[in-house]
Amino acid sequence: MPRICVRISLAVLTALAALAATPQQSADHALLGFTAESTRAQRDLEARFDAQLDADNLRNWMRHLSRHPTHVGSPGAKANAEWIAEQFRSWGFDTRIDEYQVLFPTPRERMVELVAPTRYTLRLGEPVLAEDATSGVTQDRLPTYNAYSADGDVEAEVVYVNYGIPADYEELERHGVDVRGKIVLARYGGSWRGIKPKVAADRGAIATLIYSDPRDDGYFQGDVYPEGPYRMEHGAQRGSVQDMPQYPGDPLTPGVGATANAERYTVEESPTIMKIPVLPISYGDALPILEALGGPVAPTSWRGALPLTYHLGPGPARVHMRVAFNWDLTPAYDVIAVLRGSEYPDEWVIRGNHFDGWAFGAGDPLSGMVALLEEARVVGEMAQTGWRPKRTIVYTGWDAEEPGLLGSTEWAEHHGAELQEKAIAYINSDGNGRGFMGVGGSHTLERFVNQISPDVEDPQTGVTVRERLKARLAVGGNREAASRTDLPISPLGSGSDYTPFLQHLGIPSLNIGYGGENGGGSYHSIFDSFDYYVRFGDPTFEYGVALAKTAGRATLRLANADVLPLRFGNFADNVRTYLQEVEQLAETMRDDTEHHNLLVDQNAFALAADPKQTYVVPEKKETVPYLNFAPLHNAVARLEGAAARYDSHLASAMAKGGLDADANSRLNALLQGMEQRMTRAEGLPRRPWFRHMIYAPGFWTGYGVKTLPGVREGIEEREWEEVRLFVGEIAAALDRVSDGLEEAVGILD
Amino acid sequence: MPRICVRISLAVLTALAALAATPQQSADHALLGFTAESTRAQRDLEARFDAQLDADNLRNWMRHLSRHPTHVGSPGAKANAEWIAEQFRSWGFDTRIDEYQVLFPTPRERMVELVAPTRYTLRLGEPVLAEDATSGVTQDRLPTYNAYSADGDVEAEVVYVNYGIPADYEELERHGVDVRGKIVLARYGGSWRGIKPKVAADRGAIATLIYSDPRDDGYFQGDVYPEGPYRMEHGAQRGSVQDMPQYPGDPLTPGVGATANAERYTVEESPTIMKIPVLPISYGDALPILEALGGPVAPTSWRGALPLTYHLGPGPARVHMRVAFNWDLTPAYDVIAVLRGSEYPDEWVIRGNHFDGWAFGAGDPLSGMVALLEEARVVGEMAQTGWRPKRTIVYTGWDAEEPGLLGSTEWAEHHGAELQEKAIAYINSDGNGRGFMGVGGSHTLERFVNQISPDVEDPQTGVTVRERLKARLAVGGNREAASRTDLPISPLGSGSDYTPFLQHLGIPSLNIGYGGENGGGSYHSIFDSFDYYVRFGDPTFEYGVALAKTAGRATLRLANADVLPLRFGNFADNVRTYLQEVEQLAETMRDDTEHHNLLVDQNAFALAADPKQTYVVPEKKETVPYLNFAPLHNAVARLEGAAARYDSHLASAMAKGGLDADANSRLNALLQGMEQRMTRAEGLPRRPWFRHMIYAPGFWTGYGVKTLPGVREGIEEREWEEVRLFVGEIAAALDRVSDGLEEAVGILD
Repeated sequence: MPRICVRISLAVLTALAALAATPQQSADHALLGFTAESTRAQRDLEARFDAQLDADNLRNWMRHLSRHPTHVGSPGAKANAEWIAEQFRSWGFDTRIDEYQVLFPTPRERMVELVAPTRYTLRLGEPVLAEDATSGVTQDRLPTYNAYSADGDVEAEVVYVNYGIPADYEELERHGVDVRGKIVLARYGGSWRGIKPKVAADRGAIATLIYSDPRDDGYFQGDVYPEGPYRMEHGAQRGSVQDMPQYPGDPLTPGVGATANAERYTVEESPTIMKIPVLPISYGDALPILEALGGPVAPTSWRGALPLTYHLGPGPARVHMRVAFNWDLTPAYDVIAVLRGSEYPDEWVIRGNHFDGWAFGAGDPLSGMVALLEEARVVGEMAQTGWRPKRTIVYTGWDAEEPGLLGSTEWAEHHGAELQEKAIAYINSDGNGRGFMGVGGSHTLERFVNQISPDVEDPQTGVTVRERLKARLAVGGNREAASRTDLPISPLGSGSDYTPFLQHLGIPSLNIGYGGENGGGSYHSIFDSFDYYVRFGDPTFEYGVALAKTAGRATLRLANADVLPLRFGNFADNVRTYLQEVEQLAETMRDDTEHHNLLVDQNAFALAADPKQTYVVPEKKETVPYLNFAPLHNAVARLEGAAARYDSHLASAMAKGGLDADANSRLNALLQGMEQRMTRAEGLPRRPWFRHMIYAPGFWTGYGVKTLPGVREGIEEREWEEVRLFVGEIAAALDRVSDGLEEAVGILD
Repeated sequence: MPRICVRISLAVLTALAALAATPQQSADHALLGFTAESTRAQRDLEARFDAQLDADNLRNWMRHLSRHPTHVGSPGAKANAEWIAEQFRSWGFDTRIDEYQVLFPTPRERMVELVAPTRYTLRLGEPVLAEDATSGVTQDRLPTYNAYSADGDVEAEVVYVNYGIPADYEELERHGVDVRGKIVLARYGGSWRGIKPKVAADRGAIATLIYSDPRDDGYFQGDVYPEGPYRMEHGAQRGSVQDMPQYPGDPLTPGVGATANAERYTVEESPTIMKIPVLPISYGDALPILEALGGPVAPTSWRGALPLTYHLGPGPARVHMRVAFNWDLTPAYDVIAVLRGSEYPDEWVIRGNHFDGWAFGAGDPLSGMVALLEEARVVGEMAQTGWRPKRTIVYTGWDAEEPGLLGSTEWAEHHGAELQEKAIAYINSDGNGRGFMGVGGSHTLERFVNQISPDVEDPQTGVTVRERLKARLAVGGNREAASRTDLPISPLGSGSDYTPFLQHLGIPSLNIGYGGENGGGSYHSIFDSFDYYVRFGDPTFEYGVALAKTAGRATLRLANADVLPLRFGNFADNVRTYLQEVEQLAETMRDDTEHHNLLVDQNAFALAADPKQTYVVPEKKETVPYLNFAPLHNAVARLEGAAARYDSHLASAMAKGGLDADANSRLNALLQGMEQRMTRAEGLPRRPWFRHMIYAPGFWTGYGVKTLPGVREGIEEREWEEVRLFVGEIAAALDRVSDGLEEAVGILD
């Protein structure tokens, strides 16, 4: 489901710059959580694991699994679930399929017509290409649409709203353009797609068309398919528009598993289903509409790469749009494959990837799924030769991720209590491709990841995947990256199946993938095919093997470590960076507000505007108060001290050959619950489902992470009481972590 | 000739931020250089001046002057020169036409054909439009071409070089693309156009095509002509490509007036004529070539708004290009109109605008020329009623500005010695339009300009033009602008007729114009017409009147001031800002170089690159030494002190009713030569013609200013010895100014 993007964000670069250097562990050093002796055994195991991975399996399995449509409810998805379960069984896993009944609307009718000033009936379809074998497979295939759009039959003038995020509507107001009663045309990008109709409906629009502008996703980026990897004229991006930042999963059963007998909302009651019709269109279909728009010329940053002058409207372009859906419950099949741990069977390492796609799903998600399968094959076969992991490993293949993380969410909700008791980590992957390692996750695992990445070789260059990533960061302008050893992992927002584990249940999570050199223009189209993937995704499947090595190491080390390899110094460092960011955010907003209000007083906005164009002068804004961040500073300082003490006490104990069995057990039990100490039972404001107080997707932005969300979004939305509340709540959470670390030091002594 | 752009640059914003606030002078206060009594007389005069300005004259004169082609050597230009001279005479000016014989090549042949992989013969022409009356006038009209291109008949593969500046060729090298023996296709923008073939030839290319990408100059910016003001599909930008940053004016007679008997270079000898053929083309003509390019995809910032994937080449696009020119000497007619001063006839205030254009020239230059004419009419008619300026006013209409400031440069060279003795200031204007006041010039006149702008009303809003500009700066993000009174004037690079006066002769200069709300897509095309101008330029000619009021006040105040209104505190402030900039430049280059070299050592460039694409790893760079800027700091500090002392002593003297006649004369004589103290007889490195040590156009960038050029370009080009030399030379120049100010204080006491 996510658009894998390992372009390094400014936030990550900032985080990196802020992190102190940590000494690199060479291959000779003990692994985190392992004694010297258990390290040797683990390294032997990993050498055997690596040796057995075979890229040909990935290729063959992808070809097999992507031969038919794979969306939830399709015969192909059911067949794939059963085939995947059969593989797991054949490799010795105790395997079952957990079934949930989820709401998954499919289109009955889709019609869009430009009715004025000229007429044009939108194509709403992708062509068959000789170069792409499955592009002609139509059996069971879903057309281009946005799942959880409302039904509707509307006709109105069109307004172009850029990315359709809240700031875009403020800009429209300045130009005197009102979207009430209008159909908005938004381009993909700038937010998760579900934000666009949510904001449009909030502003009074009656429907949303979302198109892929070639500036962001088409010929501006590079040669288009089938000549190159980028989106072609008639390619459109399917995808879910449920209000996932409120809660993901089945819209009818928030918080509980969507079992057959679960209590359900009606469709009308569900708060995450869009209230207006939405449809994705290609840039070929958007062109005649944009050409027909009048009104003010769009601001510079709003203009895409179509050969025209972008106007805002409203009209004279007028569109008639009709969409209707089958609002049916559909079975989702989660494949669960268990390898019982020999020493700590009730400690679970969960490793997952979804297997449902929007069409054939070769890249998204099967490229990750086949890597997981190969990883599981070797783990399973090693287990059949006598070795067993100390902890239980659970491999999962999730169904129904695309409509909104349904398979993983329902399973995590259904088994929530047990998972909070037993799960020690969740390791996710999704679409994968040629390029650079990208890891996001809990920063208690940042050090752990930095011990894995030097052990995996980059297939193209022969250096380690960490060296290659470091080079990319350094060349990208990050001065710190060239002189330090530890690389940052990104905080997680949402967009794949880690969300219910991390943000609902408080289970430490990682999301691992490779990419950055693998096109991208087939995303959620019928051209996300085997033919595309072997030309532009990862032609040799070597990066699939690299993913198996990376996620496999994470799984095996978590499963075998004597002491769980969580480290809190890195976590504290990151939280300090986020704290600095939110303080700066308040400061900047205060300055901006003062400047803005001064300009209003001076009538500067009116004087700077072109009198020949409509310009609505903005109003004054509420002053930003000075806020008390001291409780957070105190909590972070305490955490840093506690983390350092824990590290040194643990290091002493491990250097002496480890802890006795009882102490070891008590320590692991304590560590297992540490991430949950960062959660809040009542959840975040306006979205109780999201409980993690350090990481959340943005309520008004979607996938993108908001760290310290209660404070950060409180500032952004000028909800000062919320800021005050969450400064206290987060400080208390950090204190609970510090309490845990003090307790751990007690165990170690 | 210049593309008027009052979008406020970062440099200006920085300069503004760095300048200390200066108390605003209200209308009641004395004007700079005037006593309280002479201020009253001056204000009465200006009120009379304003009252007589008539927008209808501007409209009628523009229609008349733009009815035929106006380029140097055309019958229209000669007729316009004579008509303009006749007007001056009728208003009482002592008027003459000074004639020079200048090299002005015109096309004999122009042919460009795409010969592979498909064939397309370029149109190289602009269409006739019903909405534009003169677009059908072909008599005497020059086709689209670049003056001072070499003759040539070449065929080669094409390489796309973005803006064709030096940094672009470094990027091409990274991609393994070599332009030797190739025809380069560059887009307009990013530099003065003459830089593009200069750099291309320097890199071994055999020809240059320059096109207007719709991203920069076409539909991306707004609706195209005739629907809107932006450049249409077949519009191409004519213009000179002589190496003006080396020296402007007649390429055959650098440093001396191009009189009939002047010693001349041959065409072959002239260093400012391009060595390869060059031709401008429209985006309609560029499209088939760009579509036919293969090779690497161009970097993101290189991509324009044409509906295609931009590739670098070379080839398979292959172009055959043939151009040949008449290399004739042509008479240039400068109109010189003198109103003799009553008290100081040998102190000259020179006010100029050119009257030659590339086709009909309504906007560029006639919109400025008709404002100058109206200004001169009123001044002349006031003089016929008995009033006389104290100093001599010289109104000038320059011919042959478009090919490279030929009319003004030859005149300034011809009369150099006399001008350096008598000229107290040169006030330039050029194309003008609706929008905001934009002033560049000598910072000794910054305070002076800030006393004029509060006295001119903005025609659209009713506030002063300074209030409107201040609002624009403030809304544009300049926090300082909202809370201070003095606004910055920009340092001058080149691009209009001030250059020979300021940078060759060291005469204090101003360049004044309005714009920013006046389209821009007709620049140097046949659509720069009366019809265009009255729709998109300045439909009511009120901004022409505003220009007349602004430049007229500058002229009249300079002509009548008791003491020349130069102020050195603002100058010192600006030099301090430039000093901080060059120090920061060296610092940044040092850091960047260190980081770069570290990355080379770490092989990071290779590791960060996509192995499937050609990438040539860069080499290490020479370390940037620590440079001694102390002499400049000392000189600026001394200058600040001297300027403050001069200001306070002068203020005392003026408050007491002014100086006695002898002291006043000696002080003015001293002030007259102050700007010349900033010049260096040997000129700048590699271009002795440019003598000003504070302001110069960029040797490798063109129009854009380089302040403290000897130091700044020395750093940029890593010529450390040059930096050391010019730190001393500029410090000595500033000391000469301080010496002058100390002498002035002596006169005042």
